Amino acid sequence: MRYRDSGVDIDKANEATREIAKLVRQTWGESVLSEIGHFGGLFRMPDEYRQPVLVSSMDGVGTKLLVARMARRFDTVGQCLVNHCVNDILVQGARPLFFLDYVAAGKLDPQTVVSLVSGLARACRENGCALIGGETAEMPGLYQGEDFDLAGTIVGIVDREAIVDGSGIAPGDVVFALPSNGLHTNGFSLARRVVFDTLGLDVDSEVEELGGTVADELLRVHRSYLAPVAGIAEHATVKGLAHITGGGILENLPRILPRGCAARIEKGVWPVPPVFAWIARAGDVVEGEMYRVFNMGAGMLVVVSADDATRVPARAGGLDVFRVGEIVRGDRSVTLV
Amino acid sequence: MRYRDSGVDIDKANEATREIAKLVRQTWGESVLSEIGHFGGLFRMPDEYRQPVLVSSMDGVGTKLLVARMARRFDTVGQCLVNHCVNDILVQGARPLFFLDYVAAGKLDPQTVVSLVSGLARACRENGCALIGGETAEMPGLYQGEDFDLAGTIVGIVDREAIVDGSGIAPGDVVFALPSNGLHTNGFSLARRVVFDTLGLDVDSEVEELGGTVADELLRVHRSYLAPVAGIAEHATVKGLAHITGGGILENLPRILPRGCAARIEKGVWPVPPVFAWIARAGDVVEGEMYRVFNMGAGMLVVVSADDATRVPARAGGLDVFRVGEIVRGDRSVTLV
Repeated sequence: MRYRDSGVDIDKANEATREIAKLVRQTWGESVLSEIGHFGGLFRMPDEYRQPVLVSSMDGVGTKLLVARMARRFDTVGQCLVNHCVNDILVQGARPLFFLDYVAAGKLDPQTVVSLVSGLARACRENGCALIGGETAEMPGLYQGEDFDLAGTIVGIVDREAIVDGSGIAPGDVVFALPSNGLHTNGFSLARRVVFDTLGLDVDSEVEELGGTVADELLRVHRSYLAPVAGIAEHATVKGLAHITGGGILENLPRILPRGCAARIEKGVWPVPPVFAWIARAGDVVEGEMYRVFNMGAGMLVVVSADDATRVPARAGGLDVFRVGEIVRGDRSVTLV
Repeated sequence: MRYRDSGVDIDKANEATREIAKLVRQTWGESVLSEIGHFGGLFRMPDEYRQPVLVSSMDGVGTKLLVARMARRFDTVGQCLVNHCVNDILVQGARPLFFLDYVAAGKLDPQTVVSLVSGLARACRENGCALIGGETAEMPGLYQGEDFDLAGTIVGIVDREAIVDGSGIAPGDVVFALPSNGLHTNGFSLARRVVFDTLGLDVDSEVEELGGTVADELLRVHRSYLAPVAGIAEHATVKGLAHITGGGILENLPRILPRGCAARIEKGVWPVPPVFAWIARAGDVVEGEMYRVFNMGAGMLVVVSADDATRVPARAGGLDVFRVGEIVRGDRSVTLV
């Protein structure tokens, strides 16, 4: 019996590994000291920080992967994963240093892996982040058929005194929203159920209301807010940032509110992409539930003082910035009005 | 339609999250600045390094998970994952700082997740590593039945001048082995095929030759070599370290050999746990293949100069140390004699 008989094809994995190595190297700056083939990725710490704090986050893209598989389009989910992670550490004031990915499947299709990694590498380049390592695992018996999973870890850095944690938020502060371009990476279990089960559509179905196919809409790349937040921070002190992921505004904004503070958010002052009304109507999902599952067009919320609010630019990092609400007295809740 | 109808039970996930939070906090030292519930994990950089280099690695435990599921015993695979990652950065001279985990399932069983994380937390404590973050993802439709996956990322640190990379290895150097206690985390596709398909055993089957059940043998915790390598490094300059994982000695030792060097390893001078002979016989696997798939009792190889070899202790960090071979002239190959 050879190892190959048990379902693990080492040569095929090696082939994908070589392709991946090329893509990965394109993300490396001079901080990366490792060679591919090393056991671990080596990254030289930047030395311009007084009290450097590492900020890390690990995530997946959830069942957005299933839509990618239906559409056989794998590069955008790679970008989504990186951008999602970039946003998750950005909310603490950190900029990304490096990223590691995990791709697991029952049977690795090298083309699929290369496509996934090409998306990861593109987003890493766009965010100034080195794709420093990863694991590509073939696990016959654990993943069925064409099933596979994708996860990633980001490590970033912030000076201790520049950590953003919302603790300085106070009544009277102003909340701004940076627009999402659609679902981003959350709410796909519900979205898939409505689109594929209730409506009976396919990924290739054209939806006039959305101006494209189901795949075009559902696989849109999760936005990175690195540049827009940096743009705002040039003009105003950012007191708190909330990445609007699963749980929506209603569950994510409270995570950064200190005791004694609540938020009053005014619906209708920022654009809500049409995909949300379409899903709500088709799935008969009530508005409160929509706001608890989806980002509803607000991908990132930014809290600044009332004074600074006048200095927040109308556009930052290529995105419009919307004034959407204020901090009021209360117990860490969000009211949509 | 409520989100729960689509298969994601947020309350159940929250329940596991609370249990996990308790376990996780036990791994935190004063370097961890984050609170659970933050978007990212915060870790204060140690300041005793002159030119700090971050060393990171991401991995899974492969199909060892399937054996854990058959045996409904989930804590040891969590330990395996952490120890595996600790070893992967140890080979570059790094000590661990923090770890992040990813648990994904179709339907999360809180008991299973808590058990997995209890193993992760225990191993993190044992290795002086903070379990700083993680993602617990329920993905109905992506994972079938009780399928789930577990992956993790470790980040460690080494001073630039203390990086171990094998580049100084030269003919005449001596190779030592630190013993494994069995399969560790590699070769499970082949092992499972032999044990469950060819032999038709169950996880609860007693195997006299192994002195216990199949589960006891296959789920043994992958050893961390942090303490033994530190023990050796007190007496000798470590020129190279190879973690013997998938690919065995034959494929892992060459990764650290510079051009012009090869290794001559003497079989029979270190103890080979009985599980390997048992698998080879039952599966009719030839010896060369065994050494290409399994660690064969050598979990970590350590290369030192001939001078230093005399100073390597017979025991380090609780393990016996075996002199197993030497570096000779050649082209980055390994000969087993």
